[in-house]
Amino acid sequence: MSLEQQFQNKVQTESTPAQQENGVDEDEVTPWDIKAVSAKGVDYDKLIVKFGCRKIDKALVERFERLSGKKAHVFLRRGLFFAHRDLSLILDRVEAGKPFFLYTGRGPSSGSLHLGHLIPFMFTKYIQEAFNVPLIVQMTDDEKFLWKNLKVEEATKMCHENMKDIIACGFDPAKTFIFSNVEYMNSALYQNVLKVWKSVTNNQAKSIFGFVGEDCMGKSAFPGIQAAPCFSSSFPQIFNGKGDIPCLIPCAIDQDPYFRMTRDVAPKLKFHKPALIFSEFLPALQGAQTKMSASDLNSCIYISDTPKQIKTKINKYAFSGGQQTAEEHQRLGGNCDVDISFQFLRYFLEDDEELEQIRSDYTSGKLLSGHLKARAIEVVTEVVLEIQKVRKETDDTRLLQFTTPRKLDFTY
Amino acid sequence: MSLEQQFQNKVQTESTPAQQENGVDEDEVTPWDIKAVSAKGVDYDKLIVKFGCRKIDKALVERFERLSGKKAHVFLRRGLFFAHRDLSLILDRVEAGKPFFLYTGRGPSSGSLHLGHLIPFMFTKYIQEAFNVPLIVQMTDDEKFLWKNLKVEEATKMCHENMKDIIACGFDPAKTFIFSNVEYMNSALYQNVLKVWKSVTNNQAKSIFGFVGEDCMGKSAFPGIQAAPCFSSSFPQIFNGKGDIPCLIPCAIDQDPYFRMTRDVAPKLKFHKPALIFSEFLPALQGAQTKMSASDLNSCIYISDTPKQIKTKINKYAFSGGQQTAEEHQRLGGNCDVDISFQFLRYFLEDDEELEQIRSDYTSGKLLSGHLKARAIEVVTEVVLEIQKVRKETDDTRLLQFTTPRKLDFTY
Repeated sequence: MSLEQQFQNKVQTESTPAQQENGVDEDEVTPWDIKAVSAKGVDYDKLIVKFGCRKIDKALVERFERLSGKKAHVFLRRGLFFAHRDLSLILDRVEAGKPFFLYTGRGPSSGSLHLGHLIPFMFTKYIQEAFNVPLIVQMTDDEKFLWKNLKVEEATKMCHENMKDIIACGFDPAKTFIFSNVEYMNSALYQNVLKVWKSVTNNQAKSIFGFVGEDCMGKSAFPGIQAAPCFSSSFPQIFNGKGDIPCLIPCAIDQDPYFRMTRDVAPKLKFHKPALIFSEFLPALQGAQTKMSASDLNSCIYISDTPKQIKTKINKYAFSGGQQTAEEHQRLGGNCDVDISFQFLRYFLEDDEELEQIRSDYTSGKLLSGHLKARAIEVVTEVVLEIQKVRKETDDTRLLQFTTPRKLDFTY
Repeated sequence: MSLEQQFQNKVQTESTPAQQENGVDEDEVTPWDIKAVSAKGVDYDKLIVKFGCRKIDKALVERFERLSGKKAHVFLRRGLFFAHRDLSLILDRVEAGKPFFLYTGRGPSSGSLHLGHLIPFMFTKYIQEAFNVPLIVQMTDDEKFLWKNLKVEEATKMCHENMKDIIACGFDPAKTFIFSNVEYMNSALYQNVLKVWKSVTNNQAKSIFGFVGEDCMGKSAFPGIQAAPCFSSSFPQIFNGKGDIPCLIPCAIDQDPYFRMTRDVAPKLKFHKPALIFSEFLPALQGAQTKMSASDLNSCIYISDTPKQIKTKINKYAFSGGQQTAEEHQRLGGNCDVDISFQFLRYFLEDDEELEQIRSDYTSGKLLSGHLKARAIEVVTEVVLEIQKVRKETDDTRLLQFTTPRKLDFTY
């Protein structure tokens, strides 16, 4: 089957007649836009079918736990990382003692990251520690330059700030290489960009990404640049020139088009297909119909927010699944599926029993919205303060420890 | 006027009714193909009008001589470099003592270069010596990888051989930087690639270069890579980070589309427009309807050819403007305009008086084709042997003197 046949211009889930009646009839999930028709957010089960990836089931989570010898991360055991491609093959390698590496990335679009941006990095840190593997982080400041009204220098400046935020998740510089496309571009990486470029036609790229004639030519070139770090030969200083070490990419599912393309071309280039593990989107404060967006200050919790700001934002903006009055709430109960404070607790409250208690009490109406919000504020604040502590110590010298091209603490 | 309006999908000269009757009704001149309808070759006057460049007139050649203090190069005084863009602005800078640099390039498509490939380099060497300026040579091995059925490694290997051929024209490593795109790609160059990519839409690129949906996405990305070295900030090691030093590009006129695009975007990027000086094509042995082509062994004189091979090729294949028999030739005379041996003398015979004598004697029928061929063989052999002498001394160590990124003997 050709790439054209496999992929739609825009990846869409099918609509119900009711949704069609409302005019908004389908979820829209692209690397550039997320819009869900339901207040519960994107229908991820439909997306799995549409994208052709696989659901992460209980057996896979258990295998993960068995191989790592640790309880699965909250994001994994609660299905927030819900789908994958070839994760089993990576776990086979773990079992066989064969190497793999982690690759993820970030398009620097604002001075400070918000919690939604950090989900893949928090999870990546967990996998890195679970399996002791190298991590490569690509900062696509070139992408942001091409897509936004920014100078190269502005994109790269934002990129440095974002890198520090990522480092603040607690990564180890001996095992982690973070690079800016603009600052790092070199011969080894470019050779793999060229190989991807040669293997995908303009028609295929248009079909996968929906590029139009009015788009600048840089946008059409960019997918090759996001694809190339999937191949270990892009980093000779780390992998000693070896091209046969596969990667696992933890990312939000909107990035899938880049890697479907990469998976399609990898065998032609005699490289491993990248494996992927996909997260849902951390919902915006206003509701799960879209994700946290840096372009809307009040849709997200920044990792630079003060406890007071976090409190105000959750109290003021976090969409509530509760009823209008306390009396009504106690009578009818709240709806956890659409309640953003509850959704935050799904991501950030470690204690499974407490979470279930909250779900049960809120659904029955026993727990009031104000109390649910208060607990979400506590938990989110704790996460943010933890990151801020490391962030404060992350100066330019610390940054260089991660960004200098070098060997990591792994031998190939 | 937009780029779309300015440029045609294929750059074509207008046809005459007679040409239309023959089915082949227009010259075709693109970076990938040259086909002329007339045995005299491409109608360069029409091409000047169509491309919108300027003819090099006698006054400009005289100004060149005045400023350089030397007699103009054969290629210049005989109109073989026949057109330009903004050459006067470069000469204004020379007059004002302001710097400029030379940029030219080569797509490595065969193990050994032929004489046609060397025309721009021979001329570039003359300009470099006339004005004592840095020269940057881009080897587009990435282009050849994208266009041809070649591995990256094969393209780069050819590239090294071609670099040595170019060096054999007699360049000075203290003033010349030669690089392979595949091996050299770096942050400074990539930043300018990005700036060009952002300034040209897919529609514009399609209109200029005729890309189609079935082309690989790398072809569509490539023009940005050929454009970026026009800007001095692409080479911080040479120009000390300065972005305001303009370049002059000596090249065959089929490369004009790349630089029309670059000239269009340069002001948006606050860079100087590249200036250009364009050559005709050295005709194929079989006739001036196309240029020498490395893909047809018998169409060209390789710089690796032995004197015997040169003699055989010219005697056997060089299209003659003479008559069928000696008697007829003496009666009717020969046609220098289509005679390839004569065309070679136009390029390579230094002595203007001798050339005019040959033209006159051949036209009148006094000089026979065999004698004209014999003189062409002598002159071409001398040029080739001269290059071979330097080529033999050009080993990998010598190559490194040109390709190592470094400061040149110029201070900015």
